[in-house]
Amino acid sequence: MRKWENNIRKVMPYTPGEQPQKAGVIKLNTNENPYPPSPRFARLLEEMQSGDLRLYPDPDAGSLVNAIADYHGLLPEQVFVGVGSDDVLAMAFLTFFHSSKPILFPDVTYSFYDVWADLFGIPYERPALKADFTIAPEDYYRENGGVVFPNPNAPTGIALELPAIQDILEHNRDCVAIVDEAYVDFGADSALALIDRYDNLLVVRTFSKSRSLAGLRVGYAMGNPLLIKYLNDVKFSFNSYTMNQPSLYLGSRAMEDEAYFQETLRKIVNTREWAKEELKKLGFIFTDSKTNFLFARHPDYPAREIFEALREADIFVRYFDKDRIRDYLRITVGSQEEMDALIRFLKNYTHGR
Amino acid sequence: MRKWENNIRKVMPYTPGEQPQKAGVIKLNTNENPYPPSPRFARLLEEMQSGDLRLYPDPDAGSLVNAIADYHGLLPEQVFVGVGSDDVLAMAFLTFFHSSKPILFPDVTYSFYDVWADLFGIPYERPALKADFTIAPEDYYRENGGVVFPNPNAPTGIALELPAIQDILEHNRDCVAIVDEAYVDFGADSALALIDRYDNLLVVRTFSKSRSLAGLRVGYAMGNPLLIKYLNDVKFSFNSYTMNQPSLYLGSRAMEDEAYFQETLRKIVNTREWAKEELKKLGFIFTDSKTNFLFARHPDYPAREIFEALREADIFVRYFDKDRIRDYLRITVGSQEEMDALIRFLKNYTHGR
Repeated sequence: MRKWENNIRKVMPYTPGEQPQKAGVIKLNTNENPYPPSPRFARLLEEMQSGDLRLYPDPDAGSLVNAIADYHGLLPEQVFVGVGSDDVLAMAFLTFFHSSKPILFPDVTYSFYDVWADLFGIPYERPALKADFTIAPEDYYRENGGVVFPNPNAPTGIALELPAIQDILEHNRDCVAIVDEAYVDFGADSALALIDRYDNLLVVRTFSKSRSLAGLRVGYAMGNPLLIKYLNDVKFSFNSYTMNQPSLYLGSRAMEDEAYFQETLRKIVNTREWAKEELKKLGFIFTDSKTNFLFARHPDYPAREIFEALREADIFVRYFDKDRIRDYLRITVGSQEEMDALIRFLKNYTHGR
Repeated sequence: MRKWENNIRKVMPYTPGEQPQKAGVIKLNTNENPYPPSPRFARLLEEMQSGDLRLYPDPDAGSLVNAIADYHGLLPEQVFVGVGSDDVLAMAFLTFFHSSKPILFPDVTYSFYDVWADLFGIPYERPALKADFTIAPEDYYRENGGVVFPNPNAPTGIALELPAIQDILEHNRDCVAIVDEAYVDFGADSALALIDRYDNLLVVRTFSKSRSLAGLRVGYAMGNPLLIKYLNDVKFSFNSYTMNQPSLYLGSRAMEDEAYFQETLRKIVNTREWAKEELKKLGFIFTDSKTNFLFARHPDYPAREIFEALREADIFVRYFDKDRIRDYLRITVGSQEEMDALIRFLKNYTHGR
């Protein structure tokens, strides 16, 4: 080892789902939206002026912040934006979890939480989900340096209802509590209505799933202006201009076509519920996902084997080789056609039982 | 103060130069390129497909990494990319300066260095530039946790020649040394040729200045594959997808039009040298800048007053109210027309002396 390696921060990075470059693949592994953004986007792209690229973007991301604030009926001072919700969450961990007490998040949850905690040297504890993979609010009553959980949770897809969220918040007034709502638009209760009541509550959202804009990298957080100010201070201590011109220009227009948005949500939810019925017929066991993915296992076939067989057939789903969930597959809800192909494959695989 | 504020990381953020939204302003305050990117970019924008935005970008940013590696004759494993060189440098501070020994950078330099050090809790010392604002290599002989300096330095504009850079590197084999070459294309020696000799040397560049793409947010680092691997591990522990699709798509094509690039460089350098002559006639004192900005003071007029008078006339330059440099203005080299207007104003301001 070289001597200079002594000074290096060594980490175990998060592994994102594969982005196969091959054409013709059915991609159900990273929870992307099967439907493109509103057709209006083609015109927006045409209207972008390449000459403007010589100038720095607005460091305050004003156009995007204002559009998000307007959509949710908030003040711009209540909105923070970042390069996807991962950037927002990374900044939030760095800003709000600056304590020697452990932060709390579920043992089975978004697998980036422990990576950020390790990166920034934040101590943490992971209360175990109940056997049915639901969060027990009372596990979050103990003293801590902060709380973070996704709602619905990932990769389980299970949602907490508002009274349970509020129960957790009531027991956590002295630290920052983050509710990560990456998937909330697909049918769960939002904690957004609570940000006026809890000044320590940060609600995080993304354009990557329900808004069909994973390629643009836009995420945001909502909370009281003091939380947002602290978050912006850290952001401005890291990178003045995180949002590039295309993400500001396109992102600030992304919430305009509400009818199209609701229509794609409806289609995905319908396909999800149809797929649950079909998986049930094939003997799969799964959670009651309120997201755009399914979390399923089959009592007779190891998940890893199904995963590999699907991959051979150019159908990509996600498999996590981790305690408690290595029997499960996480399957993004694709278009009806993609899910037809998936179910056809699984019918064949399970011999039509 | 709320109790939850105890757990918050409190920082003094970097303040970026103003991005006035007003039209008709002469903007010489953030070292943007006065010339737009190659006319080819208009067609590239037209060719972007909005439907693709539903998919995550390639987390390895392969197309961009390959284009940069090809341009510089390197392996892709020697290149790291980020959201502007600020993102690259922030990640590099977090990765490489993980030591209890102080890192070293000049007292007068890019004012983000101490902000990153404070954010990440990195101890630092700032050897003073000599009276003429040049770096003394022997100040970097002492034991340290890392070394970072811009070449040319900012906001002084003064460049170190290759033997002096090598002198610093020779005395720093046991830590990572970063040479921040944001402005190198405007006429300084690059340390790039040394990355094969010094496996602890990281050279950082940006598309924001010479490449006319500040609005796209693309920066990069070059070094030996082990350095780049450590940097990517931290990046993948922070945000899997930092580079959005537009920055990958446009960025990977940004180095194709070499003739146009050389032509804009030539124009900026010519305008810079012309402006030096004109400033001299007006009694200004300035460094021999090798960048796309001038660093100048006038013995008879306080810099802050000139700054404010220029601002009144809608000519934005940069003023830093800091020790040793509060007598100076940093003036971006704009187009010949913009610099004509600046010089006309200053002629009038200094009564044509």
